[in-house]
Amino acid sequence: MTIDASRGETGSERIRLGMVGGGRGAFIGAVHRIAARLDDHYQLVAGALASDPERARDSAADLGIDPARAYGTFGEMAEREAVRHDGIEAVSIVTPNHMHAPVATAFLKAGIHVICDKPLSVSVSEAEELAALQKRTGRIFAVTHNYTGYPMVRQARAMVRDGSLGTIRLVQMEYAQDWLTDRLETTGQKQAEWRTDPTRSGAGGCIGDIGTHAYNLGAFVSGLETEALLARLTTFVDGRRLDDDVQILLRYVGGAQGVLWASQVAVGNENALKLRVFGTKGGLEWHQENPNQLWFTRLGEPKQLLTRGGAGTSPESARMSRVPAGHPEGYLEGFANIYAEVAAAIRAARSGSKPDPAVMFPGVSDGLSGMEFIRAAVQSSSAGNVWVGVSGA
Amino acid sequence: MTIDASRGETGSERIRLGMVGGGRGAFIGAVHRIAARLDDHYQLVAGALASDPERARDSAADLGIDPARAYGTFGEMAEREAVRHDGIEAVSIVTPNHMHAPVATAFLKAGIHVICDKPLSVSVSEAEELAALQKRTGRIFAVTHNYTGYPMVRQARAMVRDGSLGTIRLVQMEYAQDWLTDRLETTGQKQAEWRTDPTRSGAGGCIGDIGTHAYNLGAFVSGLETEALLARLTTFVDGRRLDDDVQILLRYVGGAQGVLWASQVAVGNENALKLRVFGTKGGLEWHQENPNQLWFTRLGEPKQLLTRGGAGTSPESARMSRVPAGHPEGYLEGFANIYAEVAAAIRAARSGSKPDPAVMFPGVSDGLSGMEFIRAAVQSSSAGNVWVGVSGA
Amino acid sequence: MTIDASRGETGSERIRLGMVGGGRGAFIGAVHRIAARLDDHYQLVAGALASDPERARDSAADLGIDPARAYGTFGEMAEREAVRHDGIEAVSIVTPNHMHAPVATAFLKAGIHVICDKPLSVSVSEAEELAALQKRTGRIFAVTHNYTGYPMVRQARAMVRDGSLGTIRLVQMEYAQDWLTDRLETTGQKQAEWRTDPTRSGAGGCIGDIGTHAYNLGAFVSGLETEALLARLTTFVDGRRLDDDVQILLRYVGGAQGVLWASQVAVGNENALKLRVFGTKGGLEWHQENPNQLWFTRLGEPKQLLTRGGAGTSPESARMSRVPAGHPEGYLEGFANIYAEVAAAIRAARSGSKPDPAVMFPGVSDGLSGMEFIRAAVQSSSAGNVWVGVSGA
Amino acid sequence: MTIDASRGETGSERIRLGMVGGGRGAFIGAVHRIAARLDDHYQLVAGALASDPERARDSAADLGIDPARAYGTFGEMAEREAVRHDGIEAVSIVTPNHMHAPVATAFLKAGIHVICDKPLSVSVSEAEELAALQKRTGRIFAVTHNYTGYPMVRQARAMVRDGSLGTIRLVQMEYAQDWLTDRLETTGQKQAEWRTDPTRSGAGGCIGDIGTHAYNLGAFVSGLETEALLARLTTFVDGRRLDDDVQILLRYVGGAQGVLWASQVAVGNENALKLRVFGTKGGLEWHQENPNQLWFTRLGEPKQLLTRGGAGTSPESARMSRVPAGHPEGYLEGFANIYAEVAAAIRAARSGSKPDPAVMFPGVSDGLSGMEFIRAAVQSSSAGNVWVGVSGA
Repeated sequence: MTIDASRGETGSERIRLGMVGGGRGAFIGAVHRIAARLDDHYQLVAGALASDPERARDSAADLGIDPARAYGTFGEMAEREAVRHDGIEAVSIVTPNHMHAPVATAFLKAGIHVICDKPLSVSVSEAEELAALQKRTGRIFAVTHNYTGYPMVRQARAMVRDGSLGTIRLVQMEYAQDWLTDRLETTGQKQAEWRTDPTRSGAGGCIGDIGTHAYNLGAFVSGLETEALLARLTTFVDGRRLDDDVQILLRYVGGAQGVLWASQVAVGNENALKLRVFGTKGGLEWHQENPNQLWFTRLGEPKQLLTRGGAGTSPESARMSRVPAGHPEGYLEGFANIYAEVAAAIRAARSGSKPDPAVMFPGVSDGLSGMEFIRAAVQSSSAGNVWVGVSGA
Repeated sequence: MTIDASRGETGSERIRLGMVGGGRGAFIGAVHRIAARLDDHYQLVAGALASDPERARDSAADLGIDPARAYGTFGEMAEREAVRHDGIEAVSIVTPNHMHAPVATAFLKAGIHVICDKPLSVSVSEAEELAALQKRTGRIFAVTHNYTGYPMVRQARAMVRDGSLGTIRLVQMEYAQDWLTDRLETTGQKQAEWRTDPTRSGAGGCIGDIGTHAYNLGAFVSGLETEALLARLTTFVDGRRLDDDVQILLRYVGGAQGVLWASQVAVGNENALKLRVFGTKGGLEWHQENPNQLWFTRLGEPKQLLTRGGAGTSPESARMSRVPAGHPEGYLEGFANIYAEVAAAIRAARSGSKPDPAVMFPGVSDGLSGMEFIRAAVQSSSAGNVWVGVSGA
Repeated sequence: MTIDASRGETGSERIRLGMVGGGRGAFIGAVHRIAARLDDHYQLVAGALASDPERARDSAADLGIDPARAYGTFGEMAEREAVRHDGIEAVSIVTPNHMHAPVATAFLKAGIHVICDKPLSVSVSEAEELAALQKRTGRIFAVTHNYTGYPMVRQARAMVRDGSLGTIRLVQMEYAQDWLTDRLETTGQKQAEWRTDPTRSGAGGCIGDIGTHAYNLGAFVSGLETEALLARLTTFVDGRRLDDDVQILLRYVGGAQGVLWASQVAVGNENALKLRVFGTKGGLEWHQENPNQLWFTRLGEPKQLLTRGGAGTSPESARMSRVPAGHPEGYLEGFANIYAEVAAAIRAARSGSKPDPAVMFPGVSDGLSGMEFIRAAVQSSSAGNVWVGVSGA
Repeated sequence: MTIDASRGETGSERIRLGMVGGGRGAFIGAVHRIAARLDDHYQLVAGALASDPERARDSAADLGIDPARAYGTFGEMAEREAVRHDGIEAVSIVTPNHMHAPVATAFLKAGIHVICDKPLSVSVSEAEELAALQKRTGRIFAVTHNYTGYPMVRQARAMVRDGSLGTIRLVQMEYAQDWLTDRLETTGQKQAEWRTDPTRSGAGGCIGDIGTHAYNLGAFVSGLETEALLARLTTFVDGRRLDDDVQILLRYVGGAQGVLWASQVAVGNENALKLRVFGTKGGLEWHQENPNQLWFTRLGEPKQLLTRGGAGTSPESARMSRVPAGHPEGYLEGFANIYAEVAAAIRAARSGSKPDPAVMFPGVSDGLSGMEFIRAAVQSSSAGNVWVGVSGA
């Protein structure tokens, strides 16, 4: 499989996309839009971009959205787009966490595919309802655990699956940041405010914000299912209302183990998401901040540095790449890969065909797993760091 | 200055863009299109994408270009777009090197802004004519020395200019690859074929392909002008018609020195473009393969690792960034930054205003410098590695 | 304080040293001898180097030890050296673990200073008896937790103590190896045999062999005392009799936390001992495999790379150094630093003076702490990963 | 071949060593003594350690040298040691450069083996005379180009010789420092004073001090002989009397090329000696500051990180090692390896046998090559950066 920068330029009609949230000043909405644009799979044609009507209108104008399709509420948008002959085929949900489930519900019911920022919801029950609704409607549902879009993460997953590591024994996950080392939420910083506010973020602080990313990454690469966990959640900063540091032991089905550390008070770390997987025959290591590299060691052989697009890499990573080895791809390209995978699925759905089995993105069940993970961790920590079962597994 | 992912989404009308070259199967054309799309500054509305009419038509269809604006030749395209009321405002030229100057000439004469892949031309005289023409027409002209679009390259340049390094003494430039270690051009590999063919690439092989990038990067960051150079150009691979390794000593105006090494036979290197600059008070180091970092040392102090968007970085790098520190940006974002800078210039030109003085991109004079550099290096090497003046400087 | 390679060459009479264990074929004995020789503080004049008399004699001959002082048993050696006017002043104990306490006891009773390889003993009670005996005799007692001898570990400790990190919140300790990934102990490999044998190693496998090193390092740098721990000890390799992977949560007195991971089945790791310490104002990171560097970040400032002997380092690290910055020192130099510190203490004791307060080495109480750590971890793990108090603290 | 820390402890009688230079306050003398002690191959029994008699006496006392063998002049020492039945077998010369040749001459004539610090002399003619004298006397003569003692440098050399890299095309050598960025020699700093003084250092500043190390390293690993060079030597610091930056193109016999850069004004570099070698089939890279690693890439395969003592390394590196993989060895161990190699040669000479063919150390011919290199470089630079033949080659 070759590396190809003209991935989305297929002559196939672009997918009509709407967006809820992501108006002026929002961060993640703009990231989703870049991800949607990058490969030219989508055109953004409708939006309910802000709760304030004027800001919603102005934000739509910024994006060249027809004023007639700049809606004041997501409900109105779902309803009206559903009946247009040129209505949106998919919606991107980039609101604060507590709105994810209500918005997703409205669009699923309107028969529209959903691309939802993580976490899926603010509670397990909400997530379960969404999962059931998605099943009933048969709509495509993606949760943007975007790190699974990195080519070398796909490479890692492929190597686990093809047996290069033997039987997996241990998964080490880390996500360290330092931006909440001080009590930033009292200084007017918007991101800090809502991410440390249980009414908008749910029961998890650091664990929900970044711990779930690390957890999802470990599951994606290892293919392992969690049986139980033991967690210590800590709030190091006085007065903060949610955890800012998380240490978790995991027990996977089948006997493998996991260790997960996430922190927002680890001075000297920006977005230090790291994954290490060790098996009976090999080990690998990946760092998000230098994502084009993957360390791989076969037991008894020299360590190898695999590079995106470089020698020894697999089709699974090549199909996520656009430019040659040695030209770094980054966060936005990884995010765009999720959008590209969803586009492939939507196009297959359009034509009633099955998508290429290589197509893969985090879905509603991954979102539900994340919520179960948060619930179990909070429960374990509250109970004094005891083992708690994670799901029906 | 804050980091903002919604950079191009300004409500201002998008710039109408055409493209010459870049049809199905071409590499760099697709990169230019991603760069144009990423921030939503442009819409691609016309093209002469291939010399073969059918391929031109199909390629246009892939990109959703109106068939009426899918031209068979660049000449026809320039002529007809110039008279449309909704004609293109700018053209991207992504043909093989020997076509750059003819195409650019046609569009400049038609009053259309030009974004041209490097190198500017295949000879100094062609380049000089283009420079003169650009001056006469007053059109905007960008040459995509894309590495100047990396945020930490901007950071480096800003630090040189603000005196953090003191007086510059030495600039070390490297660009090492290994893909031409064997005689790949005889195996049917298209990229290898034309890049080692003097009729399509001009007099320089490695020096033109990657040496000019390293040279441009050194000049951009240091702000120094080259007085003379002494070069050894080598063809290590038997039967190859152009150089595949280049070693150059530079003398800058004012007494600083440069050393430049570029190679396409350096086994173990993918796109190892590196820059080191040393002054009387400080030194810095940057690697393209991990472009979000910049090493900086103030004499007598510990080495610092500056990161894109991180502590201690300047507005000059922040305005080139989209996502927070620790989330890597890469090659495509750097390329898109060139397109964004050009967009700012075009919008200023639209309104007759002056562009923000911070706006900066490589222009026709940089393209001409690159051609002078190649000419001097070839001449120095042929004459037995002697000093040769580089320009009228 | 300047860096000085002629540290031990003081004109002061060298310290007369004996050794128990370390005959032909032994590994750690030779390391101790290099450590003793490196700075010329010691001369090796007596030994009970092996239990087999012939091997003991031959080994002594290799080392140029007077045959009259090549003893068959450590008991005889202690007894006879104690009464010689030129008897040894100190003994190095480099036997398998289960002999540490009996040998140390004999030499303490004979009034001879002790340098004992780690762990101090095979049980807490043995360790407590040794601690009491050391107190009664007043002899100097060092336990070679050699990683505390690295200059940049001293630097890290100094920075914690001078407040550069603010109040410590979290200590992350790791020691990953992969040499026991397979069941090496059944192949005749001697090191693997005794290190996985409870009768020779005690109750801890990986935790005793390398976990204690990581634990000691964390305590040394942070200055924190452990209150309680929760451990998961695992034997991943079928048939192995001791743990080969250890994951531990620590609670320090005062509220700081620790996380410790040690593994001997982490494919791709040789001796990957790492330490990270995070406080309210700063963070640091150190890797044993590249020990001349120390990453340090002050909150809100760029990351710094401190180097041994380089800008911004402290007297505490300079006094552990021999050669200029940029010339790497390694494992043997760090080990020799422990011997040099002990030499300073012995020379002070000779003259009845107090040693320089900067002199510092792990002692019997550190050895005891290590045994308490192992005991608590084994107990916590057996009880299902519950919190267990570590000491009388 | 196994890794063994008890390398020199062979039961064979230690070699009686003398030293000229290296009294109190000297740096490199102490390094030589550690190197001699580390493996226990030598005992230091005589010295002419300083030109000042009192300092010579006191320095000898520091080292436990019998006062009767603490000489006032090297001439007296050579004469008297030559006639003692227990006279020294070898002498270490650690004086300033201009004394190397006179001292070496005296000891060679006295029939004593010589270990001489680099550079061999201050002129080519002196070096040639020494080479001739060494040949006549048949004494062992080592020049401490100590970087050839690093295990992974041996590994690199072995890989070149076994064909792992194919035919060598290009050797890239660098040695960057920053300690002479300012005019340190006017501040009373002794090292800076004599190293920038032509009467004590010879005609080369940076080129003699560190350029020769880089040159020797390139020759040692590649096995190539230099035919000609083209050099630019620069004095960046006003008022300095010798070069502080060196850029050199090399032409090797057989058509391979070299590029060498050495600088003492490259801010941010401590002792950044680096070597890269590229051949038709593979490439390697080594950095002195992290010397236990060697990057190796076979064309078309992933990059490998070889580690000292680790998987895939050769007997040639294992015999230079003392401790297991992952425990770093450094500068002093590399230096000690040179002493160990010389010891093996001396012991073979004692017994009239041939030394193990694996034994290898830089000799008088390497020292002469270094002087020829300096002469050619100075000449090339003075003549305006022209090609100059390097030797009789």
